[in-house]
Amino acid sequence: MPQTMWGLVKETRGPGAVLREVPVPVCKSDEVLVKVKSSSICGTDVHIYKWDEWADRTVVTPNVFGHEFSGVVEAVGESVTHVKIGDSISAEGHMPCGLCRACRTGQAHVCARTISFGINAPGCFAEYTVVKAANVIHNHPDMSHEIACLQDPLGNAVQAVMAGDIVGKSVAVIGAGPIGLMAIATARACGAGAVIAVDINPYRLQMAQQMGADYVVNNTEVPMVESIMAYTGGEGAEVVLEMSGHPAAIREGLEAAAPGARVSLLGIPTSEISLDLSRHVIFKGLHISGITGRRMYQTWFQLKGLLEEKRVDLHPLITHRMPLERYEDAFELMMSGKCGKIVFTEVGHG
Amino acid sequence: MPQTMWGLVKETRGPGAVLREVPVPVCKSDEVLVKVKSSSICGTDVHIYKWDEWADRTVVTPNVFGHEFSGVVEAVGESVTHVKIGDSISAEGHMPCGLCRACRTGQAHVCARTISFGINAPGCFAEYTVVKAANVIHNHPDMSHEIACLQDPLGNAVQAVMAGDIVGKSVAVIGAGPIGLMAIATARACGAGAVIAVDINPYRLQMAQQMGADYVVNNTEVPMVESIMAYTGGEGAEVVLEMSGHPAAIREGLEAAAPGARVSLLGIPTSEISLDLSRHVIFKGLHISGITGRRMYQTWFQLKGLLEEKRVDLHPLITHRMPLERYEDAFELMMSGKCGKIVFTEVGHG
Amino acid sequence: MPQTMWGLVKETRGPGAVLREVPVPVCKSDEVLVKVKSSSICGTDVHIYKWDEWADRTVVTPNVFGHEFSGVVEAVGESVTHVKIGDSISAEGHMPCGLCRACRTGQAHVCARTISFGINAPGCFAEYTVVKAANVIHNHPDMSHEIACLQDPLGNAVQAVMAGDIVGKSVAVIGAGPIGLMAIATARACGAGAVIAVDINPYRLQMAQQMGADYVVNNTEVPMVESIMAYTGGEGAEVVLEMSGHPAAIREGLEAAAPGARVSLLGIPTSEISLDLSRHVIFKGLHISGITGRRMYQTWFQLKGLLEEKRVDLHPLITHRMPLERYEDAFELMMSGKCGKIVFTEVGHG
Amino acid sequence: MPQTMWGLVKETRGPGAVLREVPVPVCKSDEVLVKVKSSSICGTDVHIYKWDEWADRTVVTPNVFGHEFSGVVEAVGESVTHVKIGDSISAEGHMPCGLCRACRTGQAHVCARTISFGINAPGCFAEYTVVKAANVIHNHPDMSHEIACLQDPLGNAVQAVMAGDIVGKSVAVIGAGPIGLMAIATARACGAGAVIAVDINPYRLQMAQQMGADYVVNNTEVPMVESIMAYTGGEGAEVVLEMSGHPAAIREGLEAAAPGARVSLLGIPTSEISLDLSRHVIFKGLHISGITGRRMYQTWFQLKGLLEEKRVDLHPLITHRMPLERYEDAFELMMSGKCGKIVFTEVGHG
Repeated sequence: MPQTMWGLVKETRGPGAVLREVPVPVCKSDEVLVKVKSSSICGTDVHIYKWDEWADRTVVTPNVFGHEFSGVVEAVGESVTHVKIGDSISAEGHMPCGLCRACRTGQAHVCARTISFGINAPGCFAEYTVVKAANVIHNHPDMSHEIACLQDPLGNAVQAVMAGDIVGKSVAVIGAGPIGLMAIATARACGAGAVIAVDINPYRLQMAQQMGADYVVNNTEVPMVESIMAYTGGEGAEVVLEMSGHPAAIREGLEAAAPGARVSLLGIPTSEISLDLSRHVIFKGLHISGITGRRMYQTWFQLKGLLEEKRVDLHPLITHRMPLERYEDAFELMMSGKCGKIVFTEVGHG
Repeated sequence: MPQTMWGLVKETRGPGAVLREVPVPVCKSDEVLVKVKSSSICGTDVHIYKWDEWADRTVVTPNVFGHEFSGVVEAVGESVTHVKIGDSISAEGHMPCGLCRACRTGQAHVCARTISFGINAPGCFAEYTVVKAANVIHNHPDMSHEIACLQDPLGNAVQAVMAGDIVGKSVAVIGAGPIGLMAIATARACGAGAVIAVDINPYRLQMAQQMGADYVVNNTEVPMVESIMAYTGGEGAEVVLEMSGHPAAIREGLEAAAPGARVSLLGIPTSEISLDLSRHVIFKGLHISGITGRRMYQTWFQLKGLLEEKRVDLHPLITHRMPLERYEDAFELMMSGKCGKIVFTEVGHG
Repeated sequence: MPQTMWGLVKETRGPGAVLREVPVPVCKSDEVLVKVKSSSICGTDVHIYKWDEWADRTVVTPNVFGHEFSGVVEAVGESVTHVKIGDSISAEGHMPCGLCRACRTGQAHVCARTISFGINAPGCFAEYTVVKAANVIHNHPDMSHEIACLQDPLGNAVQAVMAGDIVGKSVAVIGAGPIGLMAIATARACGAGAVIAVDINPYRLQMAQQMGADYVVNNTEVPMVESIMAYTGGEGAEVVLEMSGHPAAIREGLEAAAPGARVSLLGIPTSEISLDLSRHVIFKGLHISGITGRRMYQTWFQLKGLLEEKRVDLHPLITHRMPLERYEDAFELMMSGKCGKIVFTEVGHG
Repeated sequence: MPQTMWGLVKETRGPGAVLREVPVPVCKSDEVLVKVKSSSICGTDVHIYKWDEWADRTVVTPNVFGHEFSGVVEAVGESVTHVKIGDSISAEGHMPCGLCRACRTGQAHVCARTISFGINAPGCFAEYTVVKAANVIHNHPDMSHEIACLQDPLGNAVQAVMAGDIVGKSVAVIGAGPIGLMAIATARACGAGAVIAVDINPYRLQMAQQMGADYVVNNTEVPMVESIMAYTGGEGAEVVLEMSGHPAAIREGLEAAAPGARVSLLGIPTSEISLDLSRHVIFKGLHISGITGRRMYQTWFQLKGLLEEKRVDLHPLITHRMPLERYEDAFELMMSGKCGKIVFTEVGHG
């Protein structure tokens, strides 16, 4: 076991990051040490890299960041019984308090005292990482590491899709970034009626079709609300999955929702948004759910069923694979929007 | 059967109303004619009386308005089988199309083609009224007309309270107008944990206590969010029932909601409202439901169980009884906020 | 419009049926008259043909039977507004009272006063049939009549599959008759985890694989409970869909259910069944739902979404097409178990 | 801290128990040691005392039994952070594995690897007991120990009542033993419609009225099914809470259920039961839930809300208080059925 390793470190409270040697993390009695085999870049990592207001409010420095990964267990703490060396694992990145009312009633994903792997605790853009044994997700031997590391964001998508009924219902997915694309594939795999993808980026809309969207709407070219109305026989979408966080998209998403529809809000707006609650929410009897993280661990079991039984195929989503050393290219690419998921290969094997 | 009757008519598209002789309405084959015994004034009627933008967009004139009533059947249409002369009834005021997807999947209360009794069809502030037989609600012989006419607004309150789990949960009721007061009594009767009422009107807060609020907050005197936090051990309310429609109250209601809480929006804001969706809805994983009307007819069965088994007592809510002739006093009183429900007694018996 | 037509009539209260000339049914003001284009045989029709105790208790004679169909509207009653001549339609066969508590709270499919098309009212094994306009289901122009007539039994399957969560969950489908086979395809299309089909008939198990079963169990060869345990990592099936009605299968289905599992009982046992409720239901915390008919009309919208968006393909299920004249061959075949669905082609076009 | 204490020990695998000196249990790092202030006798304890087949299959010997208690923390293990010496606590008695799918998806109460406090692990009929810190329930300072020790069985009742909708629905509670009586009070407090209690014991039926039953049925005198039908206007009970475990009662409970009703099975039958699933479950579309333990910890939060806000008052249920030394009288009384709950007072303070 080496003493040091390469890790991508957010060092200063400003833009950028540094790849440098750091100590291999120590595994406490209820934790496991993992050799990272694949990791992937989340939109959150881009916020950390670019350093915006949210990052400044939330992220600790210096810190190895990154939270989407798959790896192999190298060591286990003394009180750990259900994970053993050699296991192929991923992990839920939220470490809730376990004691509050939310945690004790199936809402641990919104625990107000959560510590977040790769955000205010060390993460996975490194050769090794440690995670709580309680947070370990065992990966099926047939699952590749590059697919396994995508389970975390797939979980966000699955939680959004599964926040209510989906079978036979028309679904508008607004925002075809990686999680939106995963939501398209998930909605299809879970029996949705017509799936309509909306974005402003032709590259992403073409991926949306690949992931199973029945219709795509480029709302730089055609108006979103009218298009969704047209594809739903004038009734509006019965399920709206808001993945963009964009103010106009959120407003129009509510407008395009059918009476009695449900709306999952996952995209994070960066400012306040003005809404016509009377017309778009109250008189229409909408149901709106804020979506963050993954339900612990219902969402994980759902997504594993979908992946292991091949109801959802995430391979088309991985557009780039590169070694961690090329992190600057990777973040540039993420910011350009001309990619699906970017997967970092094992350090030293890139 | 007389040919004409007294009816309170919205005659011109501006403030006010006129009590005058109008023809007794004719009962079609699928309708029933009712002698009105009690009716009550809804906030909606005040909007019609005052004539605001919503009224101008929605209300037909000339029209007998009013939609909360109880009465006795005087005649039934030829195809009506389950209602007979002499029955004591009230009626659901929404007349949905019955054919659209919403109507066919248990969401008739948000049917986009609904016709509304007393709004864009003749209503009950009169000696007689006609309603669709399909909309008839039979009243228990032991139920007085003055309580029976309150079932319509009680249904709004019940739908808001029952939009999710309530047992053992802390509940903030924001806005202690008549429907808020009914929601307080309903939440109590349905096993809520601590019920916290918020208003700016001491008269209404005193009524809130009478209806069963465990705590009252006058937010002209103390800040709403901090007060709710204090009464919930710092966690926030697990259920927020927004009955005020006031922008600041809605924003603060979301802020005072616990992680994973549910929020029923029933009060109608008259303008757009700016919300911090990221912080108050998405990261907290809130569930927000727009509430309008009553679920047809689940809500009616719930409220009838609560009333008939005496789980909820609405008597303290009726602060004034008067004949329809005194409608001007009644509407003045409604606008002053110094009343609970005002019940119109049978015309000629006031 | 002819005065008479060919109809398959259950004439006497004993085995068999007769194809003979009968009057074309008359369409009342709230009904529509349909030229039948395709119809299919349900297991219920076999009970009627064979004439068992259930049939004797339930079926009226003489009566044209059959209730699964698709056709084209030839005439509409005077009060019908949303159906017009030339429309391609099917219909929900349950005609509930519309007035009882079940009907008014979204449970019309279990209305105690239901009249059933083709059972105690005239049905569709004929050239023409009449149905209530309220029960009409419009078929998409792209949907063939032979697929459209299968919507009724598909609805049974969909209700069974959708009686609770399905995504990512292991599912045991016990009994691979036509509705079991439809349930397999539906579970797959709705994101189920491993789908395990159980039957004793190799022909049916081979069809089960075609419809998407991940595993098949012939429980004349291997024990059902152990096999299900093996395919679910020793935990049991999280969803059990009981489609056989066979006593041993029901008992073993409960035994093979995982703790906290849900069970849909759709197959109709012909006698009482002895169950170990303590061990198999109470200590395991099972949830058991009796399934009959289709939810009106949530199930129809679900199944139409699945069919129209091609999430479910029923073509492999239609193993035989024949004219109504060959009804004796058709019922023989049904009783042999060596078929999927048998579709009657339009009379005179077979 | 003493080395030994008095404890009620199940010593031999046969009837009876022995009160004798045993070592004070040792508190491990994740456990807390509690001075027991009140404990109460569960029906399960009677099975252990009498020693039946279930006990022989399940209970370890020698073992201090008893699992319903309230006490004060005397010591905490080194890794315990949220419980401190002097806290007034009770505890969930099921110690699930925490790692299986049931545990990780909100179904820990049916974990197949659960260890049960007072059954196959040391319990609370003693001066001291140890419990897992994770299982600790903090009691409100205002709650007396004798009420607090009843939270465990109240949780069974609450889970049964809350297994589905209750507001405004007619409820038949079959079996008015302590948990049935608690279910009556809970159903009332949660907004049930008419609550009908059924038992064969006049003493218990009189208590049922005290706890809030609207109607009582002594089914040695009148037939249960007809009586329930009569009290529900001929429709049947919309919620059936089966608390007796008696075969005839279970069969009749299903028969007396309304179409679409839900049934909670909590009473434990000691043998197999023959059921008419077609007529009573499938064609009526019933929903049946097996109820065991308490949902961890949703049920606890529900019951604490009901107790702390005084929606449910359990005082009338405590008919006897006695010191542990009188355990033989206590068990005799339990077997006679002439009691509500029997509470053991603190050893040495009886």
